[in-house]
Amino acid sequence: MSYPMPAKELGIALIGTGFMGKCHAMAWRNVAAVFGGVHPRLEILNDVTEEAAQNYARQFGFARATARWEDAINDPKVDVVSITAPNGMHRPMAEAALRAGKHVWLEKPMALTLDDARAMAALAAQHPDQKTILGYNYLRSPAFQSARKMVTDGVIGKPVAFRGVYDEDYSADPLLPWSWRMTHEGGGLGALGDLGCHLVSQMIALMGPVTEVVAQTQIVVSTRNSPEGPKPVENEDSALALLRFASGAQGSFATSRVARGRKCRLQWEVHGTDGTLVFDQENMNELWLHRHGEAGFTRHLTGPDQPDFAAFCPAPGHNFGFNEQKVVEARDLLRAIAGGAACGPDFIQGLEIEKIIHAMATSHGSVVHIER
Amino acid sequence: MSYPMPAKELGIALIGTGFMGKCHAMAWRNVAAVFGGVHPRLEILNDVTEEAAQNYARQFGFARATARWEDAINDPKVDVVSITAPNGMHRPMAEAALRAGKHVWLEKPMALTLDDARAMAALAAQHPDQKTILGYNYLRSPAFQSARKMVTDGVIGKPVAFRGVYDEDYSADPLLPWSWRMTHEGGGLGALGDLGCHLVSQMIALMGPVTEVVAQTQIVVSTRNSPEGPKPVENEDSALALLRFASGAQGSFATSRVARGRKCRLQWEVHGTDGTLVFDQENMNELWLHRHGEAGFTRHLTGPDQPDFAAFCPAPGHNFGFNEQKVVEARDLLRAIAGGAACGPDFIQGLEIEKIIHAMATSHGSVVHIER
Amino acid sequence: MSYPMPAKELGIALIGTGFMGKCHAMAWRNVAAVFGGVHPRLEILNDVTEEAAQNYARQFGFARATARWEDAINDPKVDVVSITAPNGMHRPMAEAALRAGKHVWLEKPMALTLDDARAMAALAAQHPDQKTILGYNYLRSPAFQSARKMVTDGVIGKPVAFRGVYDEDYSADPLLPWSWRMTHEGGGLGALGDLGCHLVSQMIALMGPVTEVVAQTQIVVSTRNSPEGPKPVENEDSALALLRFASGAQGSFATSRVARGRKCRLQWEVHGTDGTLVFDQENMNELWLHRHGEAGFTRHLTGPDQPDFAAFCPAPGHNFGFNEQKVVEARDLLRAIAGGAACGPDFIQGLEIEKIIHAMATSHGSVVHIER
Amino acid sequence: MSYPMPAKELGIALIGTGFMGKCHAMAWRNVAAVFGGVHPRLEILNDVTEEAAQNYARQFGFARATARWEDAINDPKVDVVSITAPNGMHRPMAEAALRAGKHVWLEKPMALTLDDARAMAALAAQHPDQKTILGYNYLRSPAFQSARKMVTDGVIGKPVAFRGVYDEDYSADPLLPWSWRMTHEGGGLGALGDLGCHLVSQMIALMGPVTEVVAQTQIVVSTRNSPEGPKPVENEDSALALLRFASGAQGSFATSRVARGRKCRLQWEVHGTDGTLVFDQENMNELWLHRHGEAGFTRHLTGPDQPDFAAFCPAPGHNFGFNEQKVVEARDLLRAIAGGAACGPDFIQGLEIEKIIHAMATSHGSVVHIER
Repeated sequence: MSYPMPAKELGIALIGTGFMGKCHAMAWRNVAAVFGGVHPRLEILNDVTEEAAQNYARQFGFARATARWEDAINDPKVDVVSITAPNGMHRPMAEAALRAGKHVWLEKPMALTLDDARAMAALAAQHPDQKTILGYNYLRSPAFQSARKMVTDGVIGKPVAFRGVYDEDYSADPLLPWSWRMTHEGGGLGALGDLGCHLVSQMIALMGPVTEVVAQTQIVVSTRNSPEGPKPVENEDSALALLRFASGAQGSFATSRVARGRKCRLQWEVHGTDGTLVFDQENMNELWLHRHGEAGFTRHLTGPDQPDFAAFCPAPGHNFGFNEQKVVEARDLLRAIAGGAACGPDFIQGLEIEKIIHAMATSHGSVVHIER
Repeated sequence: MSYPMPAKELGIALIGTGFMGKCHAMAWRNVAAVFGGVHPRLEILNDVTEEAAQNYARQFGFARATARWEDAINDPKVDVVSITAPNGMHRPMAEAALRAGKHVWLEKPMALTLDDARAMAALAAQHPDQKTILGYNYLRSPAFQSARKMVTDGVIGKPVAFRGVYDEDYSADPLLPWSWRMTHEGGGLGALGDLGCHLVSQMIALMGPVTEVVAQTQIVVSTRNSPEGPKPVENEDSALALLRFASGAQGSFATSRVARGRKCRLQWEVHGTDGTLVFDQENMNELWLHRHGEAGFTRHLTGPDQPDFAAFCPAPGHNFGFNEQKVVEARDLLRAIAGGAACGPDFIQGLEIEKIIHAMATSHGSVVHIER
Repeated sequence: MSYPMPAKELGIALIGTGFMGKCHAMAWRNVAAVFGGVHPRLEILNDVTEEAAQNYARQFGFARATARWEDAINDPKVDVVSITAPNGMHRPMAEAALRAGKHVWLEKPMALTLDDARAMAALAAQHPDQKTILGYNYLRSPAFQSARKMVTDGVIGKPVAFRGVYDEDYSADPLLPWSWRMTHEGGGLGALGDLGCHLVSQMIALMGPVTEVVAQTQIVVSTRNSPEGPKPVENEDSALALLRFASGAQGSFATSRVARGRKCRLQWEVHGTDGTLVFDQENMNELWLHRHGEAGFTRHLTGPDQPDFAAFCPAPGHNFGFNEQKVVEARDLLRAIAGGAACGPDFIQGLEIEKIIHAMATSHGSVVHIER
Repeated sequence: MSYPMPAKELGIALIGTGFMGKCHAMAWRNVAAVFGGVHPRLEILNDVTEEAAQNYARQFGFARATARWEDAINDPKVDVVSITAPNGMHRPMAEAALRAGKHVWLEKPMALTLDDARAMAALAAQHPDQKTILGYNYLRSPAFQSARKMVTDGVIGKPVAFRGVYDEDYSADPLLPWSWRMTHEGGGLGALGDLGCHLVSQMIALMGPVTEVVAQTQIVVSTRNSPEGPKPVENEDSALALLRFASGAQGSFATSRVARGRKCRLQWEVHGTDGTLVFDQENMNELWLHRHGEAGFTRHLTGPDQPDFAAFCPAPGHNFGFNEQKVVEARDLLRAIAGGAACGPDFIQGLEIEKIIHAMATSHGSVVHIER
């Protein structure tokens, strides 16, 4: 491999065992088999009850279990903490891990509030030898890495426009009951925090920094039933935005959690002076490129000519999977720990994403300037 | 047929013989063969020189030719005037035709300026017995008509969001020379006037009136060569907008004439509370529908179950063509003249489209309220 | 235009007013408007009753009407006869027209039986100054013409394999009543005669002559209801075949009239030593090309760079329609009459298609050699 | 989970470390994390040199390494042998493993010759308590499992036709040098053995047993360069076939290793009396279903409603990957060992696949009856 990997065994703590918890576990189990290096030691797993913790530790192959997350973080045999707990726990857990001298792999969104994100970024800046990485897994697919490289290499000329959406429909059903996730205090932002931040992570990777945002949000299902009766939904079901980039390019942005029939439509296009790139995560193994002089758009199927695919499979057209993105993410963190290329987005870069989604959430149709 | 068609022969004058002139000619020649009714009489054709006028009159099958457009309009044997001349001539020609007592089929955009459009709408209002129709041909395809009917019939529930783009790349080449079409005085708006107005016509047909617009525009190629040296491009290469509709729905909007690889990407989606509709004019015979409870999106190929297709072809999947949209447009005008359903957009409805694109052109990131 | 068109007005007779009859009428009305040349004179129309003939003559713009097809054919003012009557009438009508000295535009399939087709080809050979053309309209689309040219020009190297299907579902419903079209005597072949012959027409245009066929057929719905009770379906619902071409290439072939959900799936691919071409008539404005060294398949949207499109529309991506194929077909016949490039397939070339589909119908799993 | 998994730890030997060797390793590492049960013990790895064996044992996490495959197979701590060595070694290795009392996971194709396959199936029949499974991984994707279930459940009525291809282009380049893999003795069959057998595995899973085959093969690049000069390619570059199934259905079949631009086009459709199913492995997370009464084909994106997906990811539209198919395959073997549902295809079922591909290879245009 062309990058360093840790020469010593690293001890891993995993907090959370849901969608992302299992995904981290699979990644930790396979990262060295795929990319080489020393296999990490799956040291301790935390879930909310002792029984769940022990069951999942057994299933995921962790040596020990605990129902106290502080114990997982402070365990002396732990070097890296994977945090996949609910958003409201991100700040306390990540800060505890940083203070305990650990590297941190934290799921997105970074935090409930912009103040939280600022505090976390500031703390990370005080611990430069500990690496942080946020779970923006869609940055890791071979197709996206290839797209980003094409833009950087000038394959489509100078980027002049971005058009992006991230739509799902998990909240479209009006009979879906009310949850604390739909409140500012419990869930933070809505579609922007859950989906929009992923799109922002790709957008700035492709287009560079954002300088201005104008946005409007919408709550489509304004009250939902709870055992105590109807309660208001506080955070946005969808958001729309226009953007200006530092480069002079412009862009449009949309995200929705109530878009019927959309399951993982993280779809964008970059218009360059010499060509256009188009991507849709629902078909994450296809990248569409048009260059000046060609007849139309060409389908680039994921294959070993794209970054990181060959480590998984030598054969083009043999699809890369969602979970494998997370193996690349684990590798990125390990590589950074070993002194290689910085992983990203870390907490400091992640703050830039938070500024943008919070600007969208509070624009109400007026221009918001994004501070750098 | 289920609608009235003119019982008497109508005399037609055609002004212009380019892209749209030929398209009108083909439509006039076939409208009665397709839909029944009395065949219109192709009376007189106008082009800029006598020779061109005579040649095209022969090719298109018009009885007479003239190099003076006023003569075509004022000809006593003419009942309907097809105006396909450059945008700057739309107002004088349309006003002359209305004053001469003629029905008018006018290509879009309606006029160079919003003031022109207001004057034309006001004059049309004074001539209620003369029918006007604007060349928003994309409204006429069976797929679009079907989509509009689905939205109206509540197939996707209440529409809550619109996402639309109309992108082409005819101005993407920076070596394309400067033209008067790129000036405010000669060409009026840029991408908004040429492409965006089509998208607005579909958007309001699907979503109803717009109340607010926030937009920004972009000139990607700011100067172009002319025989006298470089000259500035004055009107926009692209525009992005956010919208609020009177219904409470929200929307995003984009148009570009510099989008490499896009040839007729008039693409939109309507998000409803119970489903989603998706369309792309580059595949104008496909409409994609997802409804609550279904597995995903279903492809609706154009067929005789969609409005107006059966008059052209009894067999589904046998593609409807761009030019055939114009045959439906001719039929819509004839039907209105015969006292049937109003054709649309007429000059009065067309003014609404003009207000929106001019609001986009002048928003510069601030909210513009659209007067009704 | 770069080809001759008739300098004198030709009188047209049209026999039949159904799907294809209307399609011929629209084509005759517009062919000169699109391609130049002298407009044909729509002389006389034949339908089975006087009333129908008169009504359709009025709608389609023919000067006279008759319920006797012989009168239409023998009319001294008629130069060209369009035959769109049921298949069983093809031979008598076409022979009568040839004997009356007329040019013939005949819908496919050429005839009910191979013997009929041989007789018709022989008679046409005796009338070399009268042009014949068969209604293989799918050969006329810009995308197909472009594909054929690419193959001929060696864009994909030497063609080594063909894979083709033509599937529809118009007979899939088992409740569809029995019809004489499902008998050998009344309808001739089944899916092969109705659909398969179109695929053969494209296949030999792309791949050259066929030397061997192995095929099997299938009747999926073996009896259907009639007012007199259940009756057997005699001709095939579907057929499958393997082919060898004179060039050494090989191929597979399939056609079905009972393929649920398929509406006009005339889909094929040509594998060459240097590339691959893929087409599907349901998206007739897309051609997909891969060439050695490129990343994947590139979408070629129909545009003025493809043959004959520019005469209809100067703008790429503005879809060509099914009916417009027929305008090109009319032009091909007129051009041949005017002494230009031979139109094809004429009756002699059409016989080659008939030999292949009849070989498929009678192979029953054994190799059939195709005589030249 | 709804099926038994081994209660005791099983020792694994892995033979081979290439494309499939790594794939087996990743699967063994994650199968229990994904599906539960006791984690297998990665006991010993075999590669052709000691150094390679030790390096890969370290990377894949196996406890020991050996350059002698017999030692891996006969190791007393080994319960299951993963065989991913070249095809010519399949028979001796698999027989040795069966004789040593081990369960066997063998990559496809089963063997070089039909005689070899018969012998292996016979031996497996003598060891009914040892489970065998062949690496037909494409049977394991959620989309394929869902398709198979739909067919079995009658969602598309009675299946009447199959159309399938499996095309890649790895041998398309004529400059690719000669290899022993292109000989009968060294490589066995060509495209049929490498690709076609996968398509057969899916075909019989969907359609049931095959009774008759007619086929033809083709060698497109007949000689290739070697250090000793040009040498002949002996096995087929492509094959085409027609099929009859015991059910009365019919089918067509094609496979090629020289199809330019195709990377993993394992594409098929099943025509049923009430609907049609369409699949393409290059988009392995999409299944297209049309049912009688619906407008067209509906896209079914892989999600937790399809078999086995939820164990990997709870979110629909979050793509399943090629390698994850192999995790399901490992689970299938473990489940069978634990006394659950038989995995398939085992060696006895695999022989059926071999009979069909060898019949295709030797048909030369004549009907071959497949014995049961």
